[in-house]
Amino acid sequence: MNNFSYFNPTKIIFGKGRIAALTREIPADAKVLVTYGGGSIKSNGVYEQVKDALKSHKWLEFGGIEPNPRYETLMQAVEIVKKESITMLLAVGGGSVADGTKFIAAAARFEGEPWDILSKQAPVKSAVPMGVVMTLPATGSESNGFAVISRNATQEKLSFGSPHCYPRFAVLDPQTTFSLPQRQIANGAVDAFIHVIEQYLTYPSSARLQDRLAESILLTLLEIGTKALQPDADYETRAELVWCATLGLNGLIGCGVPQDWSTHNIGHELTALYGLDHARTLAVVLPGVLRNRKHEKREKLLQYAERIWGITSGSEDERIESAITRTETFFESLGVATRLSQCGIDADTAPETVAARLAARGEKLGEHGSITPDVINEILTSRL
Amino acid sequence: MNNFSYFNPTKIIFGKGRIAALTREIPADAKVLVTYGGGSIKSNGVYEQVKDALKSHKWLEFGGIEPNPRYETLMQAVEIVKKESITMLLAVGGGSVADGTKFIAAAARFEGEPWDILSKQAPVKSAVPMGVVMTLPATGSESNGFAVISRNATQEKLSFGSPHCYPRFAVLDPQTTFSLPQRQIANGAVDAFIHVIEQYLTYPSSARLQDRLAESILLTLLEIGTKALQPDADYETRAELVWCATLGLNGLIGCGVPQDWSTHNIGHELTALYGLDHARTLAVVLPGVLRNRKHEKREKLLQYAERIWGITSGSEDERIESAITRTETFFESLGVATRLSQCGIDADTAPETVAARLAARGEKLGEHGSITPDVINEILTSRL
Repeated sequence: MNNFSYFNPTKIIFGKGRIAALTREIPADAKVLVTYGGGSIKSNGVYEQVKDALKSHKWLEFGGIEPNPRYETLMQAVEIVKKESITMLLAVGGGSVADGTKFIAAAARFEGEPWDILSKQAPVKSAVPMGVVMTLPATGSESNGFAVISRNATQEKLSFGSPHCYPRFAVLDPQTTFSLPQRQIANGAVDAFIHVIEQYLTYPSSARLQDRLAESILLTLLEIGTKALQPDADYETRAELVWCATLGLNGLIGCGVPQDWSTHNIGHELTALYGLDHARTLAVVLPGVLRNRKHEKREKLLQYAERIWGITSGSEDERIESAITRTETFFESLGVATRLSQCGIDADTAPETVAARLAARGEKLGEHGSITPDVINEILTSRL
Repeated sequence: MNNFSYFNPTKIIFGKGRIAALTREIPADAKVLVTYGGGSIKSNGVYEQVKDALKSHKWLEFGGIEPNPRYETLMQAVEIVKKESITMLLAVGGGSVADGTKFIAAAARFEGEPWDILSKQAPVKSAVPMGVVMTLPATGSESNGFAVISRNATQEKLSFGSPHCYPRFAVLDPQTTFSLPQRQIANGAVDAFIHVIEQYLTYPSSARLQDRLAESILLTLLEIGTKALQPDADYETRAELVWCATLGLNGLIGCGVPQDWSTHNIGHELTALYGLDHARTLAVVLPGVLRNRKHEKREKLLQYAERIWGITSGSEDERIESAITRTETFFESLGVATRLSQCGIDADTAPETVAARLAARGEKLGEHGSITPDVINEILTSRL
């Protein structure tokens, strides 16, 4: 087990009717900016619940944060925070709203050009306190200090993280997921599944407990995935999905183990270039990474095959191939395509374009830094 | 899944050589009281490492906190904290030192008779900030807000908890366990195992993920238990034990599920009356609770039998009995007795005495409140 530090101060407020807890979680004297996305919270009752909870607070609102939240949009909110002397941000929505609000929180206190937080990893020394009402189980953003932000002008999608950007609290009411389109539930399940994989499928590092914690989330997602997708999914199934998504990326399962975020890194480029849903890029890329890096991930792939898929017979290569194929089938069973050519883009040029962009940034990905631009090209070419 | 709130702000600092991190974790202007137990830290190098890390800090020390820390002792430290205007406590040792230091932290800021914190659950409104260097994996006290304190005069052993009593940080260097006597490692493994059981073996509550997280810790403890006990146990094995103990009682696996702390409650009385090691009381009591409440815990006992012990054949009762017997055998394989008569006490009168003491406090234990004094008597009588 590698040395590690783990600190996660976000208070989780989980369950039915918990949005009402905002009343006491947000200081009575706060001046709040409520941030949200395309407005679905106004039709599904969430906005009304937030409004009720904040009826004694002073608050303003800022809507229109888009999926893959854009720097250009977020900077408008930064202006409001400064002009209105906002003291607390409340993100109401999915991972994009939470991520965008983290950037607003950091940028509003940043001296200099806020884009440097993303492009130069300029240190974030403070941030406006924020809370989250998470309505879309997927990214884990409600309980970590990371955010991914896009910039229209340059077609970039970049990430940053800071201990100052942990939400003070995260309200998770699984009932808020009932109105989500099936596509978003499917994306969420795939996103959470792959977050876990990227902290798990590397090489053995004497971390039996972390392995089992990761496997716990994977097995639960497999059990509930298809059911969670149904429009009449019950509360309990959605509650499992929500808790899996949070624990998938709150830092815990990654403690003391090697990690491989190459699927996310490559996926971000596909989103930046072609506007594909985040989770859908991951479902395309992951099987390619696993097959291409099977020599480096052999032991963990065999463990994954046995513990997650119950595959114990056949040669090592057969067991590995079977586990990867079943992973693809799982994504497809949720309605998520696993091939670039199924994504409605000009797939043929994508491998080279993505590889060139990552090459320009000098990126070498994977737990061994062995995923060079050439390898990225190979991986994506195998996913046409 | 039940509604829940989860908040754990303790920063975990895990790994080889991490005691040096105290230098920056403790504010430079703090006046520190370092608390410890019987002095083993002075012979195993831990005290020297703490001293090195604090060489630019102002600090005093308070040794002699005993196993099952006593109110009478702790109140001496409270006097020092007040008299010397201590601003930070640093507990260096095992669960007893951490628990005792939490009480010192709360009592030093308490207006009124501090024993009320335990006997009347008087609310703790603030506490002196504290950190922990944990040298004995067992209680999870390094990352929760709970403490158990004994009082000589009345032979009581009572608990309290407060969000103000979470350690700010916990340094966990598995190397500090190398000098522990085998008995303490065994106690620690049993204590951690039973903490998990008490949050897991109740009734199904649509919490697949929490179940699997709990099972992850149990399976890991089973795999490493005997090996961890050996004097030549390697770093990796001890690291697993340390992380299992912390995650066993940091609140996570208990989120949203029913819990049954009856084994701990009954065990505390046995310690208070007869001075038995905490973990040893648990190893005696647990099998009795499980057999006696098997009608209430049937479904989870069957799940435990299958997932932890791989028992899938036989009648339900046979599978349950086999799982409980194998649990006893596991404790015994670590050198921990599971019968009262093996504990060197006048076992015959213990069941009635313990039941009477819990009756006097009006205690009804278990996830259904069905463990009345009569049932406690039955349980302990079955463990003679």
